[in-house]
Amino acid sequence: MREVLNRVGDKWSVLVIGVLGGGPKRFSEIQRTIEGISQRMLTLTVRGLERDGLVTRTVTPTIPPRVDYALTPLGRTLLEPVSVLAKWAMKNREKIQAARDRYDRG
Amino acid sequence: MREVLNRVGDKWSVLVIGVLGGGPKRFSEIQRTIEGISQRMLTLTVRGLERDGLVTRTVTPTIPPRVDYALTPLGRTLLEPVSVLAKWAMKNREKIQAARDRYDRG
Repeated sequence: MREVLNRVGDKWSVLVIGVLGGGPKRFSEIQRTIEGISQRMLTLTVRGLERDGLVTRTVTPTIPPRVDYALTPLGRTLLEPVSVLAKWAMKNREKIQAARDRYDRG
Repeated sequence: MREVLNRVGDKWSVLVIGVLGGGPKRFSEIQRTIEGISQRMLTLTVRGLERDGLVTRTVTPTIPPRVDYALTPLGRTLLEPVSVLAKWAMKNREKIQAARDRYDRG
């Protein structure tokens, strides 16, 4: 349970799953969509998602090779919980920002 | 959005919110319930949740002082998204473990 939360409770994983919810994407497309993620962090994130059986990685042997990532059927079942969380975050971001401002003013 | 996901997409925060969903708790009670969280990590987690306006910290000036943590109304609205995620994690933990075993065997 804790182990699984490690994955689904990881900001970058949540964002990558959200992006792939729109269909398969190449590495560079994911990177462009998720502002601020480094190449290394995206590599680690997709590798972790692949290991967990949530994402597939397909290499097409062109020159240069083309690598596509897609959600597996299991990965697709995560879209709903992730969207519930994302909606909550969108809806409450101003309240949270206001709370942080109050806290930081002491 | 990303900022907010930092919080709600943090494993320890998700677990603390889950624990406080059962009612106010003392620091030591939270620590006992969440196996494997260090004192320092729990301190950082509850401080972050307090800063975000999701948790209150109440000090009762007994000797020694008693410190209770509780969800705020905003924090309580996180219980549903968190439980959707937790249910997904519970339901799919065996599939994920099997995928990890396959991946690790190469």
